[in-house]
Amino acid sequence: MSLSRTRSTFAPPIIAARRWLDGVVFPPDRPLVNVSQAAPAAPPPPELRQVMADIALHDDSAHLYGPDLGLPELRAEIATQWSTHYGGIIDASQVAITSGCNQAFAAAISALTGEGDEVILPTPWYFNHKMWLDMSGITAVPLPTGPDMLPDAAAAAALITSRTRAIALVSPNNPAGVEYPSETLRAFFDIARDRGIKLILDETYRDFDARSGAVHDLFTDPAWPDTLIDLYSFSKAYRLTGHRVGALIASTDLLQEVEKFIDSVTICPNQIGQHAALWGMRNLGQWLAGERDEILDRRAAITEGFPRLAAKGWKLLGLGAYFAYVEHPFAIGSDELARRLVSEAGVLLLPATMFVPEGDPAGQRQLRIAFANLDRAGIGTMFDRLEPLSF
Amino acid sequence: MSLSRTRSTFAPPIIAARRWLDGVVFPPDRPLVNVSQAAPAAPPPPELRQVMADIALHDDSAHLYGPDLGLPELRAEIATQWSTHYGGIIDASQVAITSGCNQAFAAAISALTGEGDEVILPTPWYFNHKMWLDMSGITAVPLPTGPDMLPDAAAAAALITSRTRAIALVSPNNPAGVEYPSETLRAFFDIARDRGIKLILDETYRDFDARSGAVHDLFTDPAWPDTLIDLYSFSKAYRLTGHRVGALIASTDLLQEVEKFIDSVTICPNQIGQHAALWGMRNLGQWLAGERDEILDRRAAITEGFPRLAAKGWKLLGLGAYFAYVEHPFAIGSDELARRLVSEAGVLLLPATMFVPEGDPAGQRQLRIAFANLDRAGIGTMFDRLEPLSF
Repeated sequence: MSLSRTRSTFAPPIIAARRWLDGVVFPPDRPLVNVSQAAPAAPPPPELRQVMADIALHDDSAHLYGPDLGLPELRAEIATQWSTHYGGIIDASQVAITSGCNQAFAAAISALTGEGDEVILPTPWYFNHKMWLDMSGITAVPLPTGPDMLPDAAAAAALITSRTRAIALVSPNNPAGVEYPSETLRAFFDIARDRGIKLILDETYRDFDARSGAVHDLFTDPAWPDTLIDLYSFSKAYRLTGHRVGALIASTDLLQEVEKFIDSVTICPNQIGQHAALWGMRNLGQWLAGERDEILDRRAAITEGFPRLAAKGWKLLGLGAYFAYVEHPFAIGSDELARRLVSEAGVLLLPATMFVPEGDPAGQRQLRIAFANLDRAGIGTMFDRLEPLSF
Repeated sequence: MSLSRTRSTFAPPIIAARRWLDGVVFPPDRPLVNVSQAAPAAPPPPELRQVMADIALHDDSAHLYGPDLGLPELRAEIATQWSTHYGGIIDASQVAITSGCNQAFAAAISALTGEGDEVILPTPWYFNHKMWLDMSGITAVPLPTGPDMLPDAAAAAALITSRTRAIALVSPNNPAGVEYPSETLRAFFDIARDRGIKLILDETYRDFDARSGAVHDLFTDPAWPDTLIDLYSFSKAYRLTGHRVGALIASTDLLQEVEKFIDSVTICPNQIGQHAALWGMRNLGQWLAGERDEILDRRAAITEGFPRLAAKGWKLLGLGAYFAYVEHPFAIGSDELARRLVSEAGVLLLPATMFVPEGDPAGQRQLRIAFANLDRAGIGTMFDRLEPLSF
């Protein structure tokens, strides 16, 4: 008897990690430092909440089905802002709204691949990408990154076979934090184009990139729709996490395929979340700039504080967006370490075993710290707890 | 090169049908009669809209990720109401909330089946079920229904092979309208149990069943979780269509698998929709009874008016929930007829070709009329337009 789709993959890591908290009591003067999940911990700004309330009360159409591929105004707004930002031509018909960015990835994979096909993922990978590929009967071909946590396009090219349908990148990267250089993204794009496969680029964390302006030039190629599939999330930018809104930018041909997937899985994205995303795009640019400044300041706090850990043998491998990716100095594996950190340090973070293929030795040495929800004081507390540790 | 998942299925029928409207002008005194889609055309009652506004404004947690399997209070409310209604024991841990009922079906299939497995579907089938099976690499094994549009359990048993993982039923049925008798559902349950497969029962339209009380006794079997997967939608009951909330009731083991699917596709259902569903379940029982009375009155209007069509050779094959399923008397196929009805009668409905396997002759003779959005006057108008037709 064959395995079911879901039995071919692992349990959701975030949920598994949350279970480590069961039965552990954190004293009031020493609460848990939770750096396990990359999600805003605060609600959207009050004006945006008011918009959502007004939509619920006064917009009848927001309670009915919307188009499968999303609110036309939101598709158009993304097309306009993306075109301006990236200096390319993106039409509203090349934008689909999805129920979160995970669905954008899932839809893209279902549109591109069939049983037994292959997709190349740099490691460490985003676990939900790996899970969806497993559940889709697709082989996730690991592309190990270098010491700088960057993937190499030539190495990727060497992994392409007749079954390869896409390379999927996440930049700024989850889990490794690194911002992929423009030339790296261009090199991957060129290889994908030349080999007739797709480049999926997940830009969930783009609003928190430390670089200014467009960080890649892929949309300036008029033929971008033949190669590029760009993914985005509204969860981080406007703190719409609980409302499940993401986007997928690709050729209209591909979106016809995406439409089949969305129709069968959710019919359409929820409407209030889409209206909120639209209002955010039109009105929260300045607010979002402030959010970015805050995240960049927290990132600076990691840079400034990390020497305390480096003195104890820790290494900072990647830093950016919501994440620090680190190597610990202990003789135990990261799985055991992460579990023991809960009770012995009051810190919840994810071991790299959740981001690499089974048996990859990097998994046991590395950890992901999702620092975005810690302010400077919280980051200080985290270092206070990690610095004295020995195992 | 293999087909991608999405290329192995057809375009969404509702969208295809909507395109037939392109370029057709309906005079103001003769607007389109749209009986193509089974969805409320009006927003929820004002009190429920106010609840959604209040949640947006005052409940911080509603803006953050919720649990993958849904709001605990909503899961508990469903467990309690289902237990009371069906006279069985259903625990909150056996309930998952999904982003609409299509996702509940998709998650169940991914949890149960792998490449090349089989699922038995009575025909005519709900097209999104067929589409998801196609996209999952699963063979949808058609089980033709009889002249009464009811499937026969013994006939289903004869179709079970070593690859069969489930039988999926929809009652009240979409598209055929018929309410499956308690004994029919029991016979399918017994066969599924005896053969070690699952019975998926989609009860999206249960709130509009003309029968009172529990219409099946499947939950009274303490071992129901070994066999039954029950699906539900909040789109129809409380008009939460645009908010995408459904439910899946099954064994906790299966829900562990469902959790992987949800985590990778949407992470969690949107929160405002879940809070709305919860408030609806707790406060709109009386309102929903009124909604049901209205639908049953419209159904009666179909029964009363249909003799006008019967006199012209039409047959009423099934009637219930939101649907009338009919056979037309014309020499042309239902595909051509449905397209011509748009311009020649100002009526949009779906041909049965969208609900049966390719080549099934029933497809060309039959049509689905989703009458729920027409009041008595609108139903009269529809009959006025269909009665004089000849092709």
